[in-house]
Amino acid sequence: MNALGKHLLLELKGCDKEVLNDLSFLKSTMLKAAEEAGAMVLGESFHQFNPHGVSGAVIIAESHLFIHTWPEYGYAAVDIFTCGDSVQSEKAAGILIRELGAESHSMLEIQRGILDIQ
Amino acid sequence: MNALGKHLLLELKGCDKEVLNDLSFLKSTMLKAAEEAGAMVLGESFHQFNPHGVSGAVIIAESHLFIHTWPEYGYAAVDIFTCGDSVQSEKAAGILIRELGAESHSMLEIQRGILDIQ
Repeated sequence: MNALGKHLLLELKGCDKEVLNDLSFLKSTMLKAAEEAGAMVLGESFHQFNPHGVSGAVIIAESHLFIHTWPEYGYAAVDIFTCGDSVQSEKAAGILIRELGAESHSMLEIQRGILDIQ
Repeated sequence: MNALGKHLLLELKGCDKEVLNDLSFLKSTMLKAAEEAGAMVLGESFHQFNPHGVSGAVIIAESHLFIHTWPEYGYAAVDIFTCGDSVQSEKAAGILIRELGAESHSMLEIQRGILDIQ
């Protein structure tokens, strides 16, 4: 199967609730996850919600990482979308699982852009 | 099922190749799709790749939209992640399918954040 992109969808549960509401920590952790996985960071956009919750995107040369947090439920949704073989996306996932203190998680991998290329 | 987020994954094929490489058009179309679907735009980050391709994120109060394009294959991957009931995410999808001139598309809906809430 010839896919252009590899998309990991992470469900993180039982996370540290304070961490999930800490924009500064989440931004630096997402950037660290991207860089340690071998991605080249091009830009980011993070937002703090009132009364709680953070959304953030990290655009990388190889696609993107995204996080949405619900501190009130200890839950975060994370996406890691990469193209090519240079980024170790599971390494980025592992960093986020650990740094957010997730008690449990699930990960779904979806192939994006399966084309009819000879 | 009590899910926090609704995540649409769109595969757009046979798109207009010039449009897929036009950052300005893609940015305005993604913003229009978000707004016409009833989302509140908080930020965006778009990048043009060399020799071709665009990646872009639109962060909305209700989560995010994302696009990655491969003009050389006429292919775009689009994500529309929303929480709550206020955003008509299928409307945003329809706008993008039409404006990118996709000859064919598929759409996958994934529930994110299914929690054990009583």
